[in-house]
Amino acid sequence: MVRYLINFSYDGSNYNGYQKQKGLNTIQGKIEEALKSINNGKETKFSSSGRTDAFVHANNQYGHADIDVKITEDKLKRALNSFLPDDIYVKNVKIVSNDFHSRYMVKEKEYVYILNLSEYNAIQRKYVYQFCKKLNIRKMRKALKHIRGTHDFSNLSSNEYKEKNTIRTIYNAKITKKKNYLIFSFIANGFLKYMVRIIVGVLIEVGQSKLNEKDIKKILDGTYKGNYKKVAPPEGLYLNNVKYKKI
Amino acid sequence: MVRYLINFSYDGSNYNGYQKQKGLNTIQGKIEEALKSINNGKETKFSSSGRTDAFVHANNQYGHADIDVKITEDKLKRALNSFLPDDIYVKNVKIVSNDFHSRYMVKEKEYVYILNLSEYNAIQRKYVYQFCKKLNIRKMRKALKHIRGTHDFSNLSSNEYKEKNTIRTIYNAKITKKKNYLIFSFIANGFLKYMVRIIVGVLIEVGQSKLNEKDIKKILDGTYKGNYKKVAPPEGLYLNNVKYKKI
Repeated sequence: MVRYLINFSYDGSNYNGYQKQKGLNTIQGKIEEALKSINNGKETKFSSSGRTDAFVHANNQYGHADIDVKITEDKLKRALNSFLPDDIYVKNVKIVSNDFHSRYMVKEKEYVYILNLSEYNAIQRKYVYQFCKKLNIRKMRKALKHIRGTHDFSNLSSNEYKEKNTIRTIYNAKITKKKNYLIFSFIANGFLKYMVRIIVGVLIEVGQSKLNEKDIKKILDGTYKGNYKKVAPPEGLYLNNVKYKKI
Repeated sequence: MVRYLINFSYDGSNYNGYQKQKGLNTIQGKIEEALKSINNGKETKFSSSGRTDAFVHANNQYGHADIDVKITEDKLKRALNSFLPDDIYVKNVKIVSNDFHSRYMVKEKEYVYILNLSEYNAIQRKYVYQFCKKLNIRKMRKALKHIRGTHDFSNLSSNEYKEKNTIRTIYNAKITKKKNYLIFSFIANGFLKYMVRIIVGVLIEVGQSKLNEKDIKKILDGTYKGNYKKVAPPEGLYLNNVKYKKI
């Protein structure tokens, strides 16, 4: 048995999210089907760095699997790509030690979120959030400063699904304007469910002067009164990278 | 009856091409359905600047329709977009004189073709040709010079479907490298069926040193012996713009 770390990308448009669910089309489901075909028909578990929601994309996602048949890194890459549909692509495969874990050993993750500020673009409708309005980017950048660092992000994440530990550290967060696109980038030691999409939603409110810098502080410490949770749609979100403590 | 010139864009991925065909999903079919709903249920013909093949995209396509009901340009734009699926988008509507014709009065058209030279990209699989190999761009640019200007393009277009007049003038043609993408741009007074895709296919052969500059001249004048017609796939092709003689 050899453990392989697999670096892959996907277009989430046609999937009910990353996590395997019976009867649904999922990224994990497709990868486990491919692994089974390669691993002599044996059910083979695939563990990733974490889930992504339905319609969310990944430029660089990572996961690991234990395989019994002898296969080189490069051959496993090619075999996986030959079994996988064309919207999931294995970029790299690396043999790792048996105590490596693609979820528990994550050091940091980067998510990117893309807004189209100009007119609706039919060709990019599944790949950016078609916001199509002007935003005050200066205000958004000022508000973003309060989100950087170590905070309890329970008020900037989903209510439905709560982790025990809701403290995360955002090492870096920035907003870049490229032509008519606004690109948000967040690097953190981890993210809660809907965290990036809710932060983007809140920042959009700030950019429209519906919320201000002080409101962000209140939202974080739970003293903000009012409904601020607008979850930005999934199609603009990309898991851009994952870094590990050691490989 | 008022004639409207309609500027629209589309993602061709889900269509059997532009031209209406019974029982098939086509761009023209969708637009005529929308026009019928707006024009009091009356069958309404939509004429465009020309067809595009299945899976080919358009950033700026133009067409015209005659509508009986009184409607402003802006209202027609909004009404069309409310009836059309999300992969076809009307960008602008303009009232034109009744002798305007969106096909016969074309002055020039621009097509763009995009190659991804680096590794396969799952997210862009429907929007670029995943060529994923190195090309000698210098050689391609030299070959491209021979394609510019006025020529009989019958040997650089489809055999199946021949127009009577196969002479076209390419006013401008260039190859631009942006990061890992190679972007071809062609501006001409018109294009024959498969013309851009065959020119790109031939230029790719040049970039791989399978054809040379002299072969291009021979292909154009019909003296080249051998099979050179590789039609580049449709997903990399975009109708980028159309200019009219007068509006």
